[in-house]
Formats: sequence, structure tokens, C-alpha cells
Amino acid sequence: MSIVEAPLHRRVTEELRARIGSGEWPVGMQLPSEAALCREFGTSRGPVRQALATLRAEGVVVGGRGRAPVVGRFVPSQSFSTFTSFTEWARSIGKAPGQRTLELAKRPATSVVAGLLRLGEGGAVIDVLRVRSLDGVPTMVERASFILEVGLHLADFDCDSGSLHAHLTSRGIDLRRARHTIDAVAANRLDAEVLGIATGSPLLRERRLTCDGAGRPLCVAEDRYRPELANFAIENEVDRRTPLTRADPTHDRSAHP
Amino acid sequence: MSIVEAPLHRRVTEELRARIGSGEWPVGMQLPSEAALCREFGTSRGPVRQALATLRAEGVVVGGRGRAPVVGRFVPSQSFSTFTSFTEWARSIGKAPGQRTLELAKRPATSVVAGLLRLGEGGAVIDVLRVRSLDGVPTMVERASFILEVGLHLADFDCDSGSLHAHLTSRGIDLRRARHTIDAVAANRLDAEVLGIATGSPLLRERRLTCDGAGRPLCVAEDRYRPELANFAIENEVDRRTPLTRADPTHDRSAHP
Repeated sequence: MSIVEAPLHRRVTEELRARIGSGEWPVGMQLPSEAALCREFGTSRGPVRQALATLRAEGVVVGGRGRAPVVGRFVPSQSFSTFTSFTEWARSIGKAPGQRTLELAKRPATSVVAGLLRLGEGGAVIDVLRVRSLDGVPTMVERASFILEVGLHLADFDCDSGSLHAHLTSRGIDLRRARHTIDAVAANRLDAEVLGIATGSPLLRERRLTCDGAGRPLCVAEDRYRPELANFAIENEVDRRTPLTRADPTHDRSAHP
Repeated sequence: MSIVEAPLHRRVTEELRARIGSGEWPVGMQLPSEAALCREFGTSRGPVRQALATLRAEGVVVGGRGRAPVVGRFVPSQSFSTFTSFTEWARSIGKAPGQRTLELAKRPATSVVAGLLRLGEGGAVIDVLRVRSLDGVPTMVERASFILEVGLHLADFDCDSGSLHAHLTSRGIDLRRARHTIDAVAANRLDAEVLGIATGSPLLRERRLTCDGAGRPLCVAEDRYRPELANFAIENEVDRRTPLTRADPTHDRSAHP
């Protein structure tokens, strides 16, 4: 073994951490046996045990002591079971949320944004561009456009200080419903620069239209996440409703004619 | 208008979306004038304008504001409100689902898959690798590993013929619950080749662990979508439980927990 190489147990640790961090080994997965890991890394039990102990100490691996170790929470997942802010979500997973505001501007809406927010021709919006972090690591670029009535509440708010969502809610803004569209996008130059990644890297994108209780659009936003730092998780069950459609006027989402 | 009917603007939206989604109104086609749409749907301008604004917001319709609106690129969304197969989803949006099987193999599970499916050391799985298409356009690469008991039902099934999900369900396999993890990933060489894109292009990735009603893992799968051809959409509402309960005698029916 060359003198410049990291100790074996550290290389095993980093390799296992990378597999878990990338999601290749997802939360809840039972780890291969120590014997299998020894074979894979061509090592004795010592380094493997040391690596597992390190990861267990970090909570990346849980269990063990009689029970087989499994992958713990590592790449934090956001759920859509409730509608929460990045700040609330970060706290819920034990991470410190952070934000740096790159721009707060009032300007005429683009035609796309004007259409989404149902603004008239040349209507203005308040645009906010921020980079959001988890434990100080830049994780997401947030681009939001608010209708004036909502965005004006940001004039006296330090957007670096925390949650816009909490601030606006405290001002009585009814951020009630959202429609999220999720896809993937290549990092542009700005994304790459503020997230510290290469241009063209795949980012997880969430576009969001937020409305009040009456269905009035208040904000359109686009969040771009580094996929190795945050993902989305959804659990569902096979639809147990009968194939016969049951008209239910209270569920206006089932808007099929 | 019957009480169970969706609001007029929504019915107009869905009808226009269906025409565009089905290709009846192809990309680049100039839409009928607002006046013509009002006549056709027997409505005032309000619902027609709201429908056009919604479709414009989604990019289904582009242009407008002075210029005549035209049909844009339609990117169909998958919802997680129910648990459905690619085949069912494709049909629901008026597209013909297709599949080409690149591999059907029985082999020892990788340690990741073995861990997820709770197999013993060296346990075998049935692996299926397919490229899925919408109206003949390669849209998604599907990699699935089934436990033997389930995968053996594929031995006498032509995986090019349609839905594995429907076939397995018809054999009594209880594909009941799934946990989906969604992120983005760069296309590898195989993805790029079968999807006809450049290596490194961002793909929308959905990883899925499917269990039966008793929580037993049956299948682990990874689907990689071209984001310009399919995305995911989720609607949710703010969690209306308030941290501080505010007693309101006039609203005691809305029993907050």
C-alpha cells in the first residue's frame, strides 16, 4: 500500500458513504455482511468493522449489535404529505437551514410568470433569488416571483434571516395550496457557481404554483436541488377505489369531465 | 350546470388539454380565437381566458399577449395520488405505451438489491431491463429486480407485449405499496443510447421499492425519464393543524386534533 493512500478503513468508509449518499444504497437497506464486505474490499475484518463503526457513529448506518446493520437517513428526503417550507423541512431532519439572497427585485413579470399569476399585460412582480443551504452546504437555488400584494411584505424583511414562508404567513398571507411539478434540469452557469458544481450537472427541479384558499395564485417558484444532498420521497398504495366513478363535488381535484 | 360538474373553466382546460395531448391539435398549431372558443363552449370570455392562462402556465400553450396563442410542447405529468403502472398512465393521457425488452435475466442479486429485497447472501432475482415509450418515442429506461417467487411469473410472459404490473396482478401478486425516491441523475452510456440523447444529459429518476400488503418487498426498480417527455406532479395543502389551538366556538365542527 502506497504511503499517500488513505488508511484502508478510511477508504472503505468513504466508499460506503458514497454509496449511501448517492442513494445507491437507500434508507432501510440491510448492509452486506462483514464477510461480503471483506471479500469485496479484499481486506480483513478490522478495517470493515472500523468503517462500520464510523458510519454508525454518524447515524449513516443504524442497527448492528446482534441485528444486521441497515442504511440510516443520509440523503434527506422531502415528503409531500404536508406543505412545508425549506426551513421547516431542514429543521425536521436536524439540519441548520441557511439562505443567502442574491437578488430581491421588483420588475415586470415575464409572460410565463404573468400567465401563471394571472397578471395583466406588463404587471410587476417581486422576484427573489436565493441559495439555500443545509448545515452550511449550498443545496438548492430558489427563484420565486410573488404578486405585488404579497411581495411587498418582503420590503421590510431581511431575506437572509430565514423563512419567507413563515414571514408571509405571520403577515396573514394564506399560502394554502401548491401544485408541484418535478423534473430534472442541467445546471446553468448561475446554478453551478452558487452550488459549487459543474455546469450541466443534473439537478432535481421542483416548480411550484402556490395559491390561497380561494385558488388565487400568489407565487410561482422554481427550486433546483443538488440530488446528492436532497431528494423527494413519496409513499403510496394501489388505488382501492372501485373502477366505477363516484361523483364527489367536495373533491374538486377530480376534475375529469 | 349540475352540482357534480367541475367549474366551467376547468372543463374547458381539460378539453383543450386532451385535444393537445392526443395530438388532435399538434405542436405549433394556432389556437382558435377566444371568440371562437367562447362560441364552441357556450361560455363568456372569463372561463376561456382562465383555461388559456392555465395551459399557458404549463407551457401547453405558448405565445399570446398580442400574438395568437399556439400549441406548445406538451409534457405529460404523472401523479402519485394513485399507484399505477406506466402502461395505465400512458393510456390515461391518450398516448400509446410501448416497451422493448433489452434483458430478462435470472442472476444473483447485487448486494444492494439483496439488502432491499431482504434476500440471503447470493440469493437470485429476476432482472428486467426495458425501454418504455410514449407514442413510439423512447421516454424511460426501466430497471427492475423481482424476487424469484414473483419474477418466475415472467418466464411465460412476453415482456414486449405490455404491462408487467397488469400481468403480475392477474397472477395474484399483491403489488400493494411503494416507496418512491425521486431525484436527478446524469444519463449513462446505456441510457443515452436507448433514449437517443447525449451521455450526461439530466434524467428524472424514480427509484421504487414495492411491497405486498404485509410489507414484504417484492420488487426494486429504477426508472429514468427524459424530463422533456414526462414529469411528476403533486398537489398538496398546508397542514392546517395549528401549533397553538385557537378556540373558536363558531367553528367547533372543524375538529383540529
